Amino acid sequence: MLGSVPETEAARLCYEGGADVVQLRMKDTDGGEMLRLAKEMERIANEHNKFFIVNDRIDIAMLAHADGVHLGQSDIPLEDARRLVGDDMIIGISVDNAEQARAAVEGGADYVAVGSVFSTPTKPDAAQALGLGAVYEVKKAIGGAVPLVAIGGINRGNILDVVHAGADGVAVVSAIMAQPDIRKAAHELKTMILNDRRTRL
Amino acid sequence: MLGSVPETEAARLCYEGGADVVQLRMKDTDGGEMLRLAKEMERIANEHNKFFIVNDRIDIAMLAHADGVHLGQSDIPLEDARRLVGDDMIIGISVDNAEQARAAVEGGADYVAVGSVFSTPTKPDAAQALGLGAVYEVKKAIGGAVPLVAIGGINRGNILDVVHAGADGVAVVSAIMAQPDIRKAAHELKTMILNDRRTRL
Repeated sequence: MLGSVPETEAARLCYEGGADVVQLRMKDTDGGEMLRLAKEMERIANEHNKFFIVNDRIDIAMLAHADGVHLGQSDIPLEDARRLVGDDMIIGISVDNAEQARAAVEGGADYVAVGSVFSTPTKPDAAQALGLGAVYEVKKAIGGAVPLVAIGGINRGNILDVVHAGADGVAVVSAIMAQPDIRKAAHELKTMILNDRRTRL
Repeated sequence: MLGSVPETEAARLCYEGGADVVQLRMKDTDGGEMLRLAKEMERIANEHNKFFIVNDRIDIAMLAHADGVHLGQSDIPLEDARRLVGDDMIIGISVDNAEQARAAVEGGADYVAVGSVFSTPTKPDAAQALGLGAVYEVKKAIGGAVPLVAIGGINRGNILDVVHAGADGVAVVSAIMAQPDIRKAAHELKTMILNDRRTRL
């Protein structure tokens, strides 16, 4: 449970609000419960023709037939992960800087996630916020090779700054999950990005 | 590190002392570090012609080419695990009672681990100790279908009681790892079991 909404219901609301991807991240949950949730969330993702990604646990991602797995710099290395999941599964890699981003792209990552861009209450152990400069630097390093997702402290007030710095997508927790209406919060962020794109066409 | 000895060195000393199997169990360690250790420990196991088993993380067991994976009742279910690892990898299942043991055997487990038999400082969150009666009950339920490993608070003082109750093997942490000489501690326990078997022939 995140707040008062079960994970599966929250995922459904996010997809309905316009999220393209939902990631399941549970650091202190047993494998059995995480797999049960992952299978349910994959089913919900399929119903909405959206993506579902599992954090860290490659075994659970594979068993749930998730679209992908997300790995941090201290998780199972990309090369090992690719050997296990094959070429069809998405692998996303968290990066702090241009060097890690280039390594991820060269190693076959399907997207990179830069963060934490801003400070955030959901990862109190996260290193100091990287700032928008990191998004810009990573974008410059990888160009359009793979999508760049920005994460960490992103909300209505700064989301367009993040997009303008080079993010192809943004990942949020509090900005949606801590809101009274999850679907509406997702929809508002998605609309801000789409309207901004339209303006810049 | 367990105490002052690195995991890999501890594994080597256990094998040298006579342990047939070493299990890597790290609940709060990142996947990358756990995989690095698992690969190293698998190499050491091979050098000694012994078994190496990874707790909980099927992905890490597979990538390290471990001999097997050990799963608790709240980890990834046996049926899912078997689908992922195939028939060649050992799967061990923790059980509390005869019913769970029968289900594990019917589901294709290669061994069952009964515990905690006695109270133990290494799993302070473990449910109340099951006692020798649980070993006896599980043995009666599964017979010789698969090996029965007893775990939890086992030491020089009670190891033969556990074997006499029906355990085919015993798993220990403190009784070896908390001793000044790990190899000697392993050797002493192994010798007690072997001498006991000899006496009963």
